[in-house]
Amino acid sequence: MAEFESIPVLDKGFVRLIDVMGDDQRIAAAARVSYGGGAKSKREDAALIDYLMRNHHTSPFEMVEFTFHVKAPIFVARQWFRHRTASVNEISARYSVLDDDFFQPAAEELRGQGAANKQVGEGNLPSSEAAELANLIKRSNESSYAAYEKLLEGGLAREQARSVLPVGIYTQFYWKQDLHNLLHFLKLRLDWHAQAEIRAYAEAISGIVKRVVPASWRAFEEHALHSASFSRAELQAISRLVSRETLETELRESGLSRSRVEETLRKIYGS
Amino acid sequence: MAEFESIPVLDKGFVRLIDVMGDDQRIAAAARVSYGGGAKSKREDAALIDYLMRNHHTSPFEMVEFTFHVKAPIFVARQWFRHRTASVNEISARYSVLDDDFFQPAAEELRGQGAANKQVGEGNLPSSEAAELANLIKRSNESSYAAYEKLLEGGLAREQARSVLPVGIYTQFYWKQDLHNLLHFLKLRLDWHAQAEIRAYAEAISGIVKRVVPASWRAFEEHALHSASFSRAELQAISRLVSRETLETELRESGLSRSRVEETLRKIYGS
Amino acid sequence: MAEFESIPVLDKGFVRLIDVMGDDQRIAAAARVSYGGGAKSKREDAALIDYLMRNHHTSPFEMVEFTFHVKAPIFVARQWFRHRTASVNEISARYSVLDDDFFQPAAEELRGQGAANKQVGEGNLPSSEAAELANLIKRSNESSYAAYEKLLEGGLAREQARSVLPVGIYTQFYWKQDLHNLLHFLKLRLDWHAQAEIRAYAEAISGIVKRVVPASWRAFEEHALHSASFSRAELQAISRLVSRETLETELRESGLSRSRVEETLRKIYGS
Amino acid sequence: MAEFESIPVLDKGFVRLIDVMGDDQRIAAAARVSYGGGAKSKREDAALIDYLMRNHHTSPFEMVEFTFHVKAPIFVARQWFRHRTASVNEISARYSVLDDDFFQPAAEELRGQGAANKQVGEGNLPSSEAAELANLIKRSNESSYAAYEKLLEGGLAREQARSVLPVGIYTQFYWKQDLHNLLHFLKLRLDWHAQAEIRAYAEAISGIVKRVVPASWRAFEEHALHSASFSRAELQAISRLVSRETLETELRESGLSRSRVEETLRKIYGS
Repeated sequence: MAEFESIPVLDKGFVRLIDVMGDDQRIAAAARVSYGGGAKSKREDAALIDYLMRNHHTSPFEMVEFTFHVKAPIFVARQWFRHRTASVNEISARYSVLDDDFFQPAAEELRGQGAANKQVGEGNLPSSEAAELANLIKRSNESSYAAYEKLLEGGLAREQARSVLPVGIYTQFYWKQDLHNLLHFLKLRLDWHAQAEIRAYAEAISGIVKRVVPASWRAFEEHALHSASFSRAELQAISRLVSRETLETELRESGLSRSRVEETLRKIYGS
Repeated sequence: MAEFESIPVLDKGFVRLIDVMGDDQRIAAAARVSYGGGAKSKREDAALIDYLMRNHHTSPFEMVEFTFHVKAPIFVARQWFRHRTASVNEISARYSVLDDDFFQPAAEELRGQGAANKQVGEGNLPSSEAAELANLIKRSNESSYAAYEKLLEGGLAREQARSVLPVGIYTQFYWKQDLHNLLHFLKLRLDWHAQAEIRAYAEAISGIVKRVVPASWRAFEEHALHSASFSRAELQAISRLVSRETLETELRESGLSRSRVEETLRKIYGS
Repeated sequence: MAEFESIPVLDKGFVRLIDVMGDDQRIAAAARVSYGGGAKSKREDAALIDYLMRNHHTSPFEMVEFTFHVKAPIFVARQWFRHRTASVNEISARYSVLDDDFFQPAAEELRGQGAANKQVGEGNLPSSEAAELANLIKRSNESSYAAYEKLLEGGLAREQARSVLPVGIYTQFYWKQDLHNLLHFLKLRLDWHAQAEIRAYAEAISGIVKRVVPASWRAFEEHALHSASFSRAELQAISRLVSRETLETELRESGLSRSRVEETLRKIYGS
Repeated sequence: MAEFESIPVLDKGFVRLIDVMGDDQRIAAAARVSYGGGAKSKREDAALIDYLMRNHHTSPFEMVEFTFHVKAPIFVARQWFRHRTASVNEISARYSVLDDDFFQPAAEELRGQGAANKQVGEGNLPSSEAAELANLIKRSNESSYAAYEKLLEGGLAREQARSVLPVGIYTQFYWKQDLHNLLHFLKLRLDWHAQAEIRAYAEAISGIVKRVVPASWRAFEEHALHSASFSRAELQAISRLVSRETLETELRESGLSRSRVEETLRKIYGS
């Protein structure tokens, strides 16, 4: 199957689907354990999944499980492992000598320090400077790896020798996660606040998830990925600017069902 | 209080207790919610705690919570964060420029690569070579940090510039963990298989835990830290070599109560 | 302190704060470990907490921990324990004989079966019928408890005898939860979809949380409890009905800061 | 496949395997991500799995996932859900009317209240009394269910009417759990301290697990299920009664490898 091929990410990394358990139908079946009722058509499953997603009924999505094999720089893996619900098996640099594989951004991939948002890199660097900086990264990594090799040759334990290895070096791991928590990971890591390097992995994974659970993915895009949360003050501002009737008409004309329109109106104007 | 002082670990790290919730008495009170019965004496609390620990009744130990502020090298933090039940707030190298603080082992702290156990460093290196290797670590870290500074001066985003920083650089984090999972962390990280550098942190934390929950600590030492698990084959071998009566006598003479001796005998000879 | 008193809930239940670790200042301090910077004024802490809450930076809220002693009917406890991140010690009906304490709703607290929403009770029952049904509940519980007592008198093991006890009987438990997950619990259990009986407990707990972490509670009310999430289709409908300029003016006049207004506009119109 | 059949448990319950992800080979592959090295023979996989199990290297076992459909009495489900790492979808008695299915033990399945251990039922009741008590359980459940039906007929909301239903009524749920946590569940629930009714479910699940991951099951039986943990005092007593040489000879003759024998000796006599 296509999804079991290795998907290249960054200059030397990859994401590969190892295994998956369950699908859209499983999610619907699990939900129907709670609500009663047996097997239904694919179309009814999709409608149920959309309902579950927009009402934050998350437990049926936990019934689907993905396992990936990932190769990523340590600084990406460090962000990744902040998600604590996954199971992980990572290569151990105490046990194995790490390969000479570093994340080497091309000059045009280097970003300037963001001014407005202090944590995000934004905009390209002037190309002459960028080439120089990219080269500096390369030489620094080579020099660190040479030190690592000399330390090992000198008989130093691997667990101590690795201390000179930069966080740009590639690591590998198995990562198993249920769909609910995987979608939460994707929402955070596909966001523009996320560092571009981990976003590249999130995009590769999205392509796989979309094929395995297409109905869930559509519901996720509609109700989570491209959704926005409004505070009480924001809701009040909107309610002052748009009348209930105007919004109702607009939503009906956009094709939403009567019950969906009711849901929306209740969020802004109360019941 | 003494436990709120910063305890130095390694060359530049520390562990500092930020806060604690609960104590031995709380553990006993939580257990008594399950078993019935009100407040008891300190001595009865200690006996109950010993019973809970040796019978793996773990939930009352979850009722006590510790928060620490830790400064440790990234390679130590990486092992630390494999424990997924804790809450963590770590300094972000996307947001802040990291300081020039690297773990620099002294020459006599360098270890050779273990032969029998492939992941553990063991034994000292010859002192002349060790001095040279320690110096090599120092120069490699300095060179990496100089590259980091140049990349920042060149306008590169902090999130990208950090990729050349070695895993030996110090990071800082708040770490909140309940006592049950903290003791599990300590059992694994005080073990001789653990890397000496994280073991140093585990020892500093042990000193704090021992003072906060002395009865729990004694029970942990007796029934977990210095315990050992025997497989079916091992149990059978022991049962062939020692008669029930001989072991019973020995245990009674060592001061164990009748019911404790019964527990032990049942583990080896069945009921 | 007032919050350590037992707060009555339903006819025979209660919620009592046993202990708390941390406060608004701790949350701000934990966030500043990530962002850098030392202690700040209370006003700056509140602004930081509002920022964390509206941007879903959840980990600092995990640094505050609450322990409650709760007495609630089993059917409420069953909904409660679906929240898996808490620590729990519950009375064991294998070990103890349960008391004759049942949830007995007054006639005017009985609700009819919802028509629109199949899981929610709504509206009062006619008072003559209600009195009869309340009495029926009472007699059924008494009869079940009498059977329980006879089974125990007959020598049956408590663990088997309890099988006739209704889920309306009261149980007790210690419940320890961090603030982030506690607020998630409250968002779900204060919602009108939640069963009224567990909502009564959520309200009692809200009163405690509000006093312990007032700034976090205000941010929670504004950005979570009284917020609403809009899907892509809903956002598009709003963007067609309200121009960016109109909304900008309205939000500025309602007193939101320039950067907050930018955040809102980006959610609807993109950057 | 045979394992997808429904396995009857108790008088009206069942366990049915819905899906499984991974097998012994997957566990070995995940471990080899950490240790390096590619695919190996089945025999080498089994040896690696035995090594992982006896050294508590638990993360590779998390890579295998099981989903079950279970029908069990509520009092069993309540014990079951104390295991918080699983994903659950349970039938909702707010949404659905529960069927008239109660756990009805046969007279000869009734147990007396344990004297030594206060929580465990033990020994049979005299058969004349037992028949009477079994009948009493039956009538009490029938009477409770009749009250439930009358409350529903009277128009009471399902969420309130259910409060008279006994915890012996059957519920149904999907339960998804990884192998590591599943084995922990089985160790606790196959133990003689566990209530016989949940033990019956644990035994049904054991039969399934054994077939799906035979090498892991053998390692689990040897190193976990039939193992025992010895405290420091117990280890010292054994070391005084058996000499290192005697034990070494016995273990070698029982067929353990030299390295396994070394492991055992280190547990008792130190290194």
